[in-house]
This record gives sequence, structure tokens and C-alpha cells, in this order.
Amino acid sequence: MKIGIYGYGNLAKGVEAAAEYADDCSVVGIFTRRDPDTVKSLTGVNVYSANDILNFKNEIDVLVICGGSATDLPEMTPTLAENFSVVDSFDTHSNIPIHFANVDKKAKLAGKLALICAGWDPGMFSLMRTYASSILPNGRDYTFWGKGVSQGHSDAARRIEGVLDARQYTVPVQSAIDKVKNGEEPEFTARDKHTREVFVVAQEDADKARIEKEITEMPNYYSDYNTTVHFISAEEMKEKHSALPHGGTVIRSGKTGLNGENKHTVEFNLKLDSNPEFTGSVLLASARAVDRMYKRGRRGCITMLDIAPSDLSALSGEELRKCLL
Amino acid sequence: MKIGIYGYGNLAKGVEAAAEYADDCSVVGIFTRRDPDTVKSLTGVNVYSANDILNFKNEIDVLVICGGSATDLPEMTPTLAENFSVVDSFDTHSNIPIHFANVDKKAKLAGKLALICAGWDPGMFSLMRTYASSILPNGRDYTFWGKGVSQGHSDAARRIEGVLDARQYTVPVQSAIDKVKNGEEPEFTARDKHTREVFVVAQEDADKARIEKEITEMPNYYSDYNTTVHFISAEEMKEKHSALPHGGTVIRSGKTGLNGENKHTVEFNLKLDSNPEFTGSVLLASARAVDRMYKRGRRGCITMLDIAPSDLSALSGEELRKCLL
Repeated sequence: MKIGIYGYGNLAKGVEAAAEYADDCSVVGIFTRRDPDTVKSLTGVNVYSANDILNFKNEIDVLVICGGSATDLPEMTPTLAENFSVVDSFDTHSNIPIHFANVDKKAKLAGKLALICAGWDPGMFSLMRTYASSILPNGRDYTFWGKGVSQGHSDAARRIEGVLDARQYTVPVQSAIDKVKNGEEPEFTARDKHTREVFVVAQEDADKARIEKEITEMPNYYSDYNTTVHFISAEEMKEKHSALPHGGTVIRSGKTGLNGENKHTVEFNLKLDSNPEFTGSVLLASARAVDRMYKRGRRGCITMLDIAPSDLSALSGEELRKCLL
Repeated sequence: MKIGIYGYGNLAKGVEAAAEYADDCSVVGIFTRRDPDTVKSLTGVNVYSANDILNFKNEIDVLVICGGSATDLPEMTPTLAENFSVVDSFDTHSNIPIHFANVDKKAKLAGKLALICAGWDPGMFSLMRTYASSILPNGRDYTFWGKGVSQGHSDAARRIEGVLDARQYTVPVQSAIDKVKNGEEPEFTARDKHTREVFVVAQEDADKARIEKEITEMPNYYSDYNTTVHFISAEEMKEKHSALPHGGTVIRSGKTGLNGENKHTVEFNLKLDSNPEFTGSVLLASARAVDRMYKRGRRGCITMLDIAPSDLSALSGEELRKCLL
């Protein structure tokens, strides 16, 4: 399988690193919107201008698009699907139906296959919600995120006047998780499930009380949560908060038996040192499935829910049945 | 979807109960090897003789075969796949390749679709091992079972002279699980991962010391584990050990980054009050996928690794993308 990587931020580097562990995959090139002469790849893969992507139409089996969900992917994925089979990690849950429709239309017209929303949420967590609810329809599922860095919340805090740098951790409330694991099927507000912890480097003369107030009262991002703000030095930020860990938990509890007399709990946890490297690894496995499904004749837009797990694996059906089944 | 249930033990009752929660499924009949006049179904579904199954060839979309893996399924599944699309829960891991080959041959000749090894292990646990190893090829996975009742080990203890009844619990060793979750990628012997706990009702005059010795030293079943034997009364057995709980954990830890510098842990847990009812629920969702895939033209033998999760769900693609993705 020959892949191209479109964009070259943290996620793209995660895909590039993942490809090093996949014997069945080679990276044809990295395509950047910056001047390619100013970009050096991690593994020595050639870097080209994104403007030249169409020259590689016949050399790339699957193009992995590494852009942001807010403005990049809604444009990029449908456009690139006119010439390539593609994978993206679109993660704005509420806009998935419209993104799916846009990409599906272009991919079908062009006779290409496009996988959207690959990653861990949406992605692996979606798979778990689907499996668990298919098996236990009489039940309820819960998703908890963290402890991990939310880039969106970090950015929001960084835009406040007097803030030089900020890093936000989403933290699940353990007592809430325990209630769910106990099969209680509780009702939660946003505040019940997660707390937010923000580390801030402020300008020397900044009014810290005002910054703290502006963060904790910020609508959509912070006001619905119990938020703690810590002011730290630039050195401490660099030393202790440079990594991008994340993770979370999906739990479904459900009942079976004619009178619902038996309880069952299905739980899936991820603990990730590097969100972009794990997500990049999901994108690479997903590209493998897209390559295979395209070659079998599948066209249009799909998600990870439409992929048979065996298509993600480098192992053959025989090997999977012998070793992993 | 119209299903038939072949066999009528605990697992079959689990399938029957699961069908009550599935609006898209009706049970055409239960097919028993016993005299059907002596068998009463839980939900009032008609009970027929297994000998009459061929009369229902045109009325059943998928036949769910509920037999034992040791002698029933190796015979039943290939034979029934000559006339029906089928689902079974074959779980003798080492014999999967031969069972697959036998069933695949018959199903292909007959133009039917057969799903083998549905359940939780093999089944859901196999899916998790496959997803996790596809995403994190540079890693290692571990499966722990329990705490739960192993019917095979209970039966083995029951065959000892002087034993009236026995119930065996497989118990995972928590410190071993913790090491794996910590990403240590340890090497384990069988003894390191699980202990076994056996509750025995002995004949009044039986030599308990001999029974305990015969259990703990029994090759294949007990001698490789630290086993504890408790002698209890028939009343206590009935009161405290009548249920069939089970569950377990699949964990994969793996590394990403050019130098393997970032660790990730993927963990999946099941905690089941009733092993047969949960397994029956997996079989029912699997039957839904078989029905759909058969109607799309798929033939031969498959496993859960070959099923896209969306095919297991009663929800439409649009609903899944909107609500669960």
C-alpha cells in the first residue's frame, strides 16, 4: 500500500511514524501548504507542495488527510476525494452527517472510497458504543474523556488577554465512573462527569484574578464545569506540560433476561502517552482497510463502523483465525 | 429477520431472551433433540423436533446453533450449513482452523453464509485483540478470564469419585493485570495469570483429602495453577453458586514514535452476570449481520472479525453516524 500524507502537523507526524511499523506500507510523499523547502520530514520521506498533489494521482493508493476539523477538512476531504481514496480524522460530532453527505457525493461521482472520522473518538470509541449497544440494546452507554490535553480548551484559554501560554487537562470524575461501572445507569450533567484543570503562564503584570475569572466563566468551554486554574512559570510549562497525553473510557451497562434480571458491563479504556501518535496509528490501519475495500469495489463515504476488523490488520485471515480469534 | 434456535440449553435460552429485545427479529421455532412435547419454551415459541428442521428451510433466515464445541458443533455446523445460513459459538481455540475449513466448504457448496466462533472469547475479545494489534503492531496483548465459572473445569472436578457437585471459578491475578496495565510487557506462566477456586459437595463418607489432591493435581485442568478447594453443603452450593457469571479483560500495551518513546494501553473489560445470556445476545446480533451479509451476496464461512460493526446494529447507518459515531 502506497500512502500520501496531506498536511504536516503533529497528527501527520504520527501517521509517518506509524508507517515505520507497517511492513506493507510505504509513504510516497508528504504534501504541505508551506514552502516544502522549509519542511523536513522525520523519516526522510520527500516533502512536496500541496499544490502538486494531482501529479501523484497514479502513485498514491490512499491519501491520509491531516487537517483540522473546524475549517480544513470540510473543504479538503470532499475536494481531494475527487481524485484520491482518502482517510480523514474529522471529529466535530455534530457536523458528521453533513460532512458525510458532502464527501459521499464527491467520492461516488469520482469512483473513490473515502473514510471519515477515523481516530479514537470518533473512531475506536464509536466502535465500542456500537458493539456494546448492538449486543445489549436494553442499556445505556457513557463516555468519559481524559485525563488528557484538550487542544480546543487550551487554545480558548490562550486567547485571553494577559495569557502567554495555557494547557488544559480534561479529568473524568472517578466517582461518576464508579457509579456507571456499578450498573446504576445514572443521569449526569456535564459538571458531574468531568472537571477541567488549566495551567497558565501569565504576563508578568497581568491581573491573575481577572484571568482566572475569565477562564472559569467562559461559556461553552468552561462555565459548565468545575475548573481549577494554576499559574505556573514558562519553564514549568515546558518541563511538565509539553506532552499530549489523552485517553478515556466508554462503558455500557445493560440488562438481559426476560425480566432484565441479569446485569452486564462492557468497558473500554484508552491510556495514551501521545494523542497524535495513537490517532496517526488508527489512521494508518484505516488506510489499509480503505485500500483493500476500494480494490474490492467499495465506493463512496464510509466510517470505521463500516470496516470489518480483519481489514485493518496486516495479518491474513488464516493468521488472524489461528492467532487472535 | 426470522431466526431458528437449534438446541435448547442455557445458551439457546439466552438467544431466545435476547430476541425479545430485538424489534427486527422473530423466532420461528426452537429445534430440540429431545421429545419436543417435553420441552416448554420461555417465551411461548413453538418447539419442534430437530429431525424436522428441513421443513423450515424456507422460513428461517438464520439458524442459531446452540450446541457444545467438543462433539456437537463440529458435526452440526457443517451439516446444517448445507441448508441454512448459520451462526455458532464454537470455542475450542486450537480447532478453529479445521472447523472453519469444514464449514466453509459446505457453506460455499450450498451457497450459504456461516458465522462461527461468535460470543465473547472467541468473539468480542478476538475483536479487541485484532483492533489493538492492528493499531499498535509494536506491542503485546494479554487476555485474563474471570472471575467466573468455567463449566469445563467444574465438570472435570465433578467426575472425581466421591464428588456430588462442583463449581469452579477462574480468578485473574490482580497484580499480573496491574503489571500489564503499567505497560511492563511481562512474561507470564499460566500460574502467574490465574488462580482456580473450586467449591465441592462431597459424599458424606468421602475422603476429602484425596478429593482435594485429585483436583489440585489433575493435569491440563488444575496442576498448572494454584488451586483452592472448599467443601460446602448442597444447600450452600444451590444458594451461592447457581449463577453463571463470567467476564475478563483484554489488554494490549504498545509503543509508537520513531524510537518507541510513547506508550499506549488499550483495555477491554467484560463483567457478566450471566455468561449464557450475554453470549446469546452476541449470537443474536451476529445473526442480524449474517442475514444482511447473505442478502448482499456473501457466501462461505466468516467470523466476527469479518463483520463490519454497523451490520450488528439494529440502527440504520444514518442513526449510527448521528448518535453513536
